[in-house]
Amino acid sequence: MEAPATPPSNPPAAAAAQSIKVAAICGSLRKGSCNRGLIRAAIEISNNSINGMIIEYIDISSLPFLNTDLEIDGTYPPEVEAFREKIRQSDSILFASPEYNYSVSGPLKNAIDWGSRPPNVWADKAAALVTAAGDSGGTRQQYHIRQIGVFLDLHFINKPEFFLHRPLAPPQKCDKDGNLIDDEIREKLKEVLLSLYSFTLRLKGKI
Amino acid sequence: MEAPATPPSNPPAAAAAQSIKVAAICGSLRKGSCNRGLIRAAIEISNNSINGMIIEYIDISSLPFLNTDLEIDGTYPPEVEAFREKIRQSDSILFASPEYNYSVSGPLKNAIDWGSRPPNVWADKAAALVTAAGDSGGTRQQYHIRQIGVFLDLHFINKPEFFLHRPLAPPQKCDKDGNLIDDEIREKLKEVLLSLYSFTLRLKGKI
Amino acid sequence: MEAPATPPSNPPAAAAAQSIKVAAICGSLRKGSCNRGLIRAAIEISNNSINGMIIEYIDISSLPFLNTDLEIDGTYPPEVEAFREKIRQSDSILFASPEYNYSVSGPLKNAIDWGSRPPNVWADKAAALVTAAGDSGGTRQQYHIRQIGVFLDLHFINKPEFFLHRPLAPPQKCDKDGNLIDDEIREKLKEVLLSLYSFTLRLKGKI
Amino acid sequence: MEAPATPPSNPPAAAAAQSIKVAAICGSLRKGSCNRGLIRAAIEISNNSINGMIIEYIDISSLPFLNTDLEIDGTYPPEVEAFREKIRQSDSILFASPEYNYSVSGPLKNAIDWGSRPPNVWADKAAALVTAAGDSGGTRQQYHIRQIGVFLDLHFINKPEFFLHRPLAPPQKCDKDGNLIDDEIREKLKEVLLSLYSFTLRLKGKI
Repeated sequence: MEAPATPPSNPPAAAAAQSIKVAAICGSLRKGSCNRGLIRAAIEISNNSINGMIIEYIDISSLPFLNTDLEIDGTYPPEVEAFREKIRQSDSILFASPEYNYSVSGPLKNAIDWGSRPPNVWADKAAALVTAAGDSGGTRQQYHIRQIGVFLDLHFINKPEFFLHRPLAPPQKCDKDGNLIDDEIREKLKEVLLSLYSFTLRLKGKI
Repeated sequence: MEAPATPPSNPPAAAAAQSIKVAAICGSLRKGSCNRGLIRAAIEISNNSINGMIIEYIDISSLPFLNTDLEIDGTYPPEVEAFREKIRQSDSILFASPEYNYSVSGPLKNAIDWGSRPPNVWADKAAALVTAAGDSGGTRQQYHIRQIGVFLDLHFINKPEFFLHRPLAPPQKCDKDGNLIDDEIREKLKEVLLSLYSFTLRLKGKI
Repeated sequence: MEAPATPPSNPPAAAAAQSIKVAAICGSLRKGSCNRGLIRAAIEISNNSINGMIIEYIDISSLPFLNTDLEIDGTYPPEVEAFREKIRQSDSILFASPEYNYSVSGPLKNAIDWGSRPPNVWADKAAALVTAAGDSGGTRQQYHIRQIGVFLDLHFINKPEFFLHRPLAPPQKCDKDGNLIDDEIREKLKEVLLSLYSFTLRLKGKI
Repeated sequence: MEAPATPPSNPPAAAAAQSIKVAAICGSLRKGSCNRGLIRAAIEISNNSINGMIIEYIDISSLPFLNTDLEIDGTYPPEVEAFREKIRQSDSILFASPEYNYSVSGPLKNAIDWGSRPPNVWADKAAALVTAAGDSGGTRQQYHIRQIGVFLDLHFINKPEFFLHRPLAPPQKCDKDGNLIDDEIREKLKEVLLSLYSFTLRLKGKI
């Protein structure tokens, strides 16, 4: 079936005054992760050309494995509390994640689950997904995260979808440190950010 | 994990002036379908107590199987054109469907696919799902329809989810003609409708 | 993660005496369907080079939409009975289907559902999936069919997976009549058939 | 649609000599986990009444988060190597897991991903899933694990499916230490084990 056209557009000048905060989470813990590189590129793009969109990278590597035995008198471990507070303060979420075995990565799922503990800090936020993965670009895992998002009460943008297929042979899209080095993909990433920006404002009744 | 609280609320008086049209589609062709009964109940509820929400039942039984050979010079068969026009005129969609073999029913998928042919008539509408099914109430199929909705660019409400478990033993929730005869479930259905009403207005920037 | 190696191998000479019947079903009704072309290619391949594997194309275009009102005294409409009998007589199933809106096609789901009516004619058979689709090659829909298969009690081969990405620009993989015209893909299709052949015999305890 | 009948049967006397080893993994790290209780019950059942089936509980709580930076010269951290060796030595897998946010738990996904690193230690094994979960009994997550299993090359039994719905109100199915205290569910669990036992032998060509 035909993909509905969704021309990206620059945010209208009027909306430029509307500022949103985006929490960006990377599903890979690898130092040279291309997915973390996508977040760095997203921060650059928003700083340079999306007035009103502030993206902050939220590290999840220090979270313990979810275990409700760690919840004492309704409080969470300090790293968990800090993570939850970051999510709570954001207006929307950017997930950048590899696909592991056709699904979400363990560290990302673990972070998601901590955030869902009462009170669920994800509730009613807008969200977008970008994946860099070797085979199909991550087409299988994104729908798992979307199913998870129903319970979390996240509102994902539908378009554009973003799958960075990482080729085995050069030219590469990311360098060895995970930096995005492909201009066409950088442009696609910008379209995702603009869509997330608009949808966040729309859900907030500000557009 | 804990389900985020989503207290249903009556639409605010101010919004009462905002009128929306909802297209309701039933995935079962069976005469005594309980899912079609859910649509009849939804129409009653909206007529009686949701000022500004107009639900229309859209029949899909006369659509041919999707076959692009039936598309002549960019036009569709008359039944398809009529169906597409009904969807185009609606503000949001209510799907009421059984679960067949852990997924969407064939007739419903067929109708969805006709609607997606260019130009996609589902694009950017709000949507809600209700299922009456024997075993788990349809918990498996709803996420298939939500995945389909990503391509269609539908925005599904997340909460409340509605699964009518149809017990093998009495008391039944639907009578032999498929009429909903359970007041508690009727109340839950109303919560779904209120959520769809609010989300539709929210996406339209009217709330 | 790394894909486990699954070297295709020709069936051992000893197994050559073991004959299996495969029912092949196409999810598209379009005359020039590339998916139906895959079935034609599969029949050719098995006739020419897989001794003991007999593939029969089963047409599903004349089945009515599933509607249990059409079941009279436990019997099904004649077209349905004929279809069910074909499936019943087969040892395993080959699904060749496009991806419509990230899921199974309506006609294919409809045929699957008729086969599942009691007694379920799919039960305990081996199965394989091949898809020709424009975008990702059908990576999203195959897992929907696999979920459906849990209820049907089908045993799908895991490897190799087969996704025919249909490029927008030439060179095409299928000609305008849907015939497979790419030798590399023909070889991959043969690997799927060999895997299905082996798995069918393995489940039957004949290998 | 009707569920195909799959009467559990005791393993035939002839097969009793066939011994299989099952690795049992729990997706919850909580001390009083009912899912770990299901594994204890499964071990008891197999010891007492399934001659030839040996189930071993494999702890995953000490595994680090998956991070390929931890792989040095193609070797894995010692806990990972030990875990992988346990899986490698098993004939089939029993997953007992809660459902977190409609999907797999983070710790379980993490263990699965370590096992998939080259060479994939899950390949070609039989597997079964049991879930204890509050709401629907885990009906949403099991299909995520099955999708993951396609890449892992696991062969899941289709029947019977096992979902332990944990009621909010007494009588409970598990006590506060997670021990299974419901005889009807114990019987259902035995049916799962018998099905896994048979399917494992069938895939090995021993039945």
